[in-house]
Amino acid sequence: MKKLSERDQRYLWHPLTQHKTHPGMLGITSAKGVFLHSEEGHSYIDAIASWYTCMYGHCNDFIIDRVQDQMRQLDQVVFSGFTHKPAIELAEALAKILPANQQKFFFSDNGSTAVEVAIKMAIQYHFNKGEKRNIMLALEEGFHGDTFGAMSVSGLSVYNGAFEDFFIKVIRLPRPTEDNIEELLHKAEVLLEENAIAGFIYEPLVQGAAGMKLIEACHLDPLLELMRNYGVLTIADEVMTGFGKTGSNFASDQIKHHPDLMCLSKALTAGLLPMGLTTCTREIFDAFYSEEISKGFFHGHTYTANPLACTAASAALELLLTDEIQTDICRINQMHADFDARMKRHPKVGNSRYTGVIYALDLAVSMQRYGKLRDTLYKKFMHKGVFLRPLGNTIYILPPYIITDDQLSKVYQSIEEVIDSI
Amino acid sequence: MKKLSERDQRYLWHPLTQHKTHPGMLGITSAKGVFLHSEEGHSYIDAIASWYTCMYGHCNDFIIDRVQDQMRQLDQVVFSGFTHKPAIELAEALAKILPANQQKFFFSDNGSTAVEVAIKMAIQYHFNKGEKRNIMLALEEGFHGDTFGAMSVSGLSVYNGAFEDFFIKVIRLPRPTEDNIEELLHKAEVLLEENAIAGFIYEPLVQGAAGMKLIEACHLDPLLELMRNYGVLTIADEVMTGFGKTGSNFASDQIKHHPDLMCLSKALTAGLLPMGLTTCTREIFDAFYSEEISKGFFHGHTYTANPLACTAASAALELLLTDEIQTDICRINQMHADFDARMKRHPKVGNSRYTGVIYALDLAVSMQRYGKLRDTLYKKFMHKGVFLRPLGNTIYILPPYIITDDQLSKVYQSIEEVIDSI
Repeated sequence: MKKLSERDQRYLWHPLTQHKTHPGMLGITSAKGVFLHSEEGHSYIDAIASWYTCMYGHCNDFIIDRVQDQMRQLDQVVFSGFTHKPAIELAEALAKILPANQQKFFFSDNGSTAVEVAIKMAIQYHFNKGEKRNIMLALEEGFHGDTFGAMSVSGLSVYNGAFEDFFIKVIRLPRPTEDNIEELLHKAEVLLEENAIAGFIYEPLVQGAAGMKLIEACHLDPLLELMRNYGVLTIADEVMTGFGKTGSNFASDQIKHHPDLMCLSKALTAGLLPMGLTTCTREIFDAFYSEEISKGFFHGHTYTANPLACTAASAALELLLTDEIQTDICRINQMHADFDARMKRHPKVGNSRYTGVIYALDLAVSMQRYGKLRDTLYKKFMHKGVFLRPLGNTIYILPPYIITDDQLSKVYQSIEEVIDSI
Repeated sequence: MKKLSERDQRYLWHPLTQHKTHPGMLGITSAKGVFLHSEEGHSYIDAIASWYTCMYGHCNDFIIDRVQDQMRQLDQVVFSGFTHKPAIELAEALAKILPANQQKFFFSDNGSTAVEVAIKMAIQYHFNKGEKRNIMLALEEGFHGDTFGAMSVSGLSVYNGAFEDFFIKVIRLPRPTEDNIEELLHKAEVLLEENAIAGFIYEPLVQGAAGMKLIEACHLDPLLELMRNYGVLTIADEVMTGFGKTGSNFASDQIKHHPDLMCLSKALTAGLLPMGLTTCTREIFDAFYSEEISKGFFHGHTYTANPLACTAASAALELLLTDEIQTDICRINQMHADFDARMKRHPKVGNSRYTGVIYALDLAVSMQRYGKLRDTLYKKFMHKGVFLRPLGNTIYILPPYIITDDQLSKVYQSIEEVIDSI
């Protein structure tokens, strides 16, 4: 029998991959807790929690037991005209921890569709009120997904040359910092005066795909306040930041002005199966609530509010709120602080930063996002039994909450050794 | 404890729903085989297989057992750099039954994203070859999904007024028929001469959301041949038609010219959890295979090729190919034929039609797609214990393959009684 890595090459086209320069895919046969196990017999610490999803560990028995019960009860049903307990219970549980203004929940299947839904809601909200606002505001280097709408608002278009003609109208603002905030507010106000801006989408506190770049709450707040003054709907894309990663349940909890809409996915279902969720205020919902059928929101995916995904999400939420997991988040944050104190003195490290369980450092060299040095780093980490995916010259850690002190120390050690070796 | 239907109203925003005119959602507590069971204690035959997904019945033990095993083994892993057995085995099994030119498989999370991927591949294919082709061709009344790219190519935009400014460039052709095919081919050729068409997307044999409108293979064939002659990539959206519904494994099997790309979802995972799949020819893959990283396809969703979804899909495929299910498909088709002979004589029935397990009739009255008469029909069917969702004046059946003769007869009978009662 051929190996998985060989059989893979026959039919599979992998995401975000140039197959000619990156031909080999490693066969993963099982996963448990923080570990991925390969067909070669090696084990790897999943130090980015499989793209920030499996925060309670792979194949988590508590979550799996719940989903397996649900699977025998009600697998799937059309969510137009029907409802079910898994969706209702998830909404009730989420409402307890989301910012209090988030009152209505619309399901879809991934982060990109959660963003598409939010953009469509923002545009139709104004349309339903008789205002034609057809421009979105977004941040430079923001990333919001790969479908056409989501791509349009993503400032971080690495290799989107083929599609630029097809994007919806978006104006980009620089990431707010201490240095540019006054100028940025002025620039934004000039744009807002024209009254054509429907919504503003942003990743609160951390721009993930850009390389875990931090934004301070005190710089987002005046921007959000300005948007509110001009009736622009604010959309917090918490697909990456949601569910504890920044130290609070949501990054938006640390910002005074709460968003009008929020996009959730990834850790929502704890790395078991896909789901997206767009939440919003009652005011937005009310703008669609009408005797006129056409004012409704005619968006839908077949598996909307899939009962299995809702069940996984409710179980994950229960885990998130336990003392154990909350303690883990603080513990990881403290370990990041200690590690960062060392790395700040390292001659090969430029900027370094952390918030919650997210840690990132930039090597003091420039390199291509998908270039050769980046690949070398990747391979060196894997050789040490640690799965990390550097973004260009940024090395970041976003571990499952259940990672032990020893395991996390091993991740730190591998980073120090790899940096010293290059 | 409040009922589900009451609790639902607090937080949930349902898809394709004007909540003011359609306030009540029925609480579904369980499902098994062809039946949905409500909290009111009623049972309903799921005569549209929960939007054409659970073709082997709800909570199918064969499929569930497989998925439950997978869940304890490998739940999820990043599909860039890694691969796994569930994805490989699914691809190998699908390759055996897809049109032979479909050689490369790209995963995503639902039908809309499968279409977004296909559109992006078609556009970038030409871009990578140095040709700027930036227009898509599509059929009037086609439906391909609700994300911005998928919406753009959907001719059936029921309530998309708010978004029309944001669509990508699309030219629509009428549905080919005996009467218009010559004129249509001429019109298409004039468009193709300008050399700016990247791809042509169509639902083969049946336009689903349009009201199960049939297209004959002999009218699609010359159109597809013409596209090929002009280097236009053809995209068969088989999200609805795939996996046996038209009597063959894929609708494209009945058409001489095979598509360059295919979009799959819905029954792919048998109604258990969401997944999308875009398949294509090796020629398309090769246009992305290059030393230049930027020629790769930089699209990805976090849960791409989710191992649970792949496992469900492989199990479903095994069932599809059994003699039992193939016999069921023929049996249902024959029952549709007998029913149709009766309905063709019915004074209140206009056009009626069927292919494979899909049956549709139009009432000889006009009505709004989401209007009051449509709602009356819906309620009357539910009152009779049958879940059908009329599309305007079109009543259609798309039952799970495992529906018994008696159950299907009950569906027919309910349709006859409801038509007689209006």
